[in-house]
Amino acid sequence: MRILGLDPGLQHTGWGVIDAVGSRLTFVAAGVVHSNAKLDLAMRLVEIHDGLRDVIDAHQPDEAAVEETFVNKNPSSTLKLGLARGVSLLVPALYKLRVAEYPTNLVKKSVVGAGHADKEQIKMMVGMLLPPARDQKSSDAADALAVAICHAHHMGTLGKWGARDFREVAR
Amino acid sequence: MRILGLDPGLQHTGWGVIDAVGSRLTFVAAGVVHSNAKLDLAMRLVEIHDGLRDVIDAHQPDEAAVEETFVNKNPSSTLKLGLARGVSLLVPALYKLRVAEYPTNLVKKSVVGAGHADKEQIKMMVGMLLPPARDQKSSDAADALAVAICHAHHMGTLGKWGARDFREVAR
Repeated sequence: MRILGLDPGLQHTGWGVIDAVGSRLTFVAAGVVHSNAKLDLAMRLVEIHDGLRDVIDAHQPDEAAVEETFVNKNPSSTLKLGLARGVSLLVPALYKLRVAEYPTNLVKKSVVGAGHADKEQIKMMVGMLLPPARDQKSSDAADALAVAICHAHHMGTLGKWGARDFREVAR
Repeated sequence: MRILGLDPGLQHTGWGVIDAVGSRLTFVAAGVVHSNAKLDLAMRLVEIHDGLRDVIDAHQPDEAAVEETFVNKNPSSTLKLGLARGVSLLVPALYKLRVAEYPTNLVKKSVVGAGHADKEQIKMMVGMLLPPARDQKSSDAADALAVAICHAHHMGTLGKWGARDFREVAR
């Protein structure tokens, strides 16, 4: 089962692809789709759309998982995240992929074992769970891999992992 | 110049197509793209995407205009509107249409002559400006036609209309 994880953002949409076979996870690829802030909003969404299509065409995932956007106190930022998230949910669905959604806290818990963790912690743990991703410089790509790991966990392919098991893997 | 106006919403996305030739506006078609609330979010966005593609394929607009989503105090509603608006901005841009955006108050002012107007007032004025749209039952479709009228006004095709001219048209 190949999983595409997405961490949507208008400026940077992180993506990460992993293979989940039984309890074994392997890194396939990860990166970031950028949109040009100088373009119209609609054209920026086209850039995200086209970038995600390229990722799906290149890596042929079976399922997708999207991080639920952080709803913050600034309604204008929430709306912008909503636009990017709309495209991130849409594109895999246009490819007939099942698209799961996970709240940020569950993603963090699946990877770090706690609902609160900073970007550096997530990056470190993603690098431990998926060693070839260790050199991933972008925290957006690491977050997207964390979403893919969370999906692998919750779709049952990893069996019943608890926070303790995650720590053991991390050692 | 054929204009597609869109009033995005996750459940109901209103659309309206008008022709603007000089200062003359004519009604072409209008309607609503619905999404099934029982489906996954991603599949609902696919329904909006497919519905808007059908509209563009059928009516071949030259430009599009989208109402800026009402940012309300409920962040979760704002986010949902953002998802639908993302798709409404994306689809015409995928057809290489220029996509303009107008705040709700400007749309209302362009049609009713005041920044504050209820849905019934907008529907009535849209019916006066575009008589064949008078029987349009949906206020979402009427709102979308109002966005198209606003775009016709602000792109300059109608010349310099003020609120007074709109009232004269309405008589």
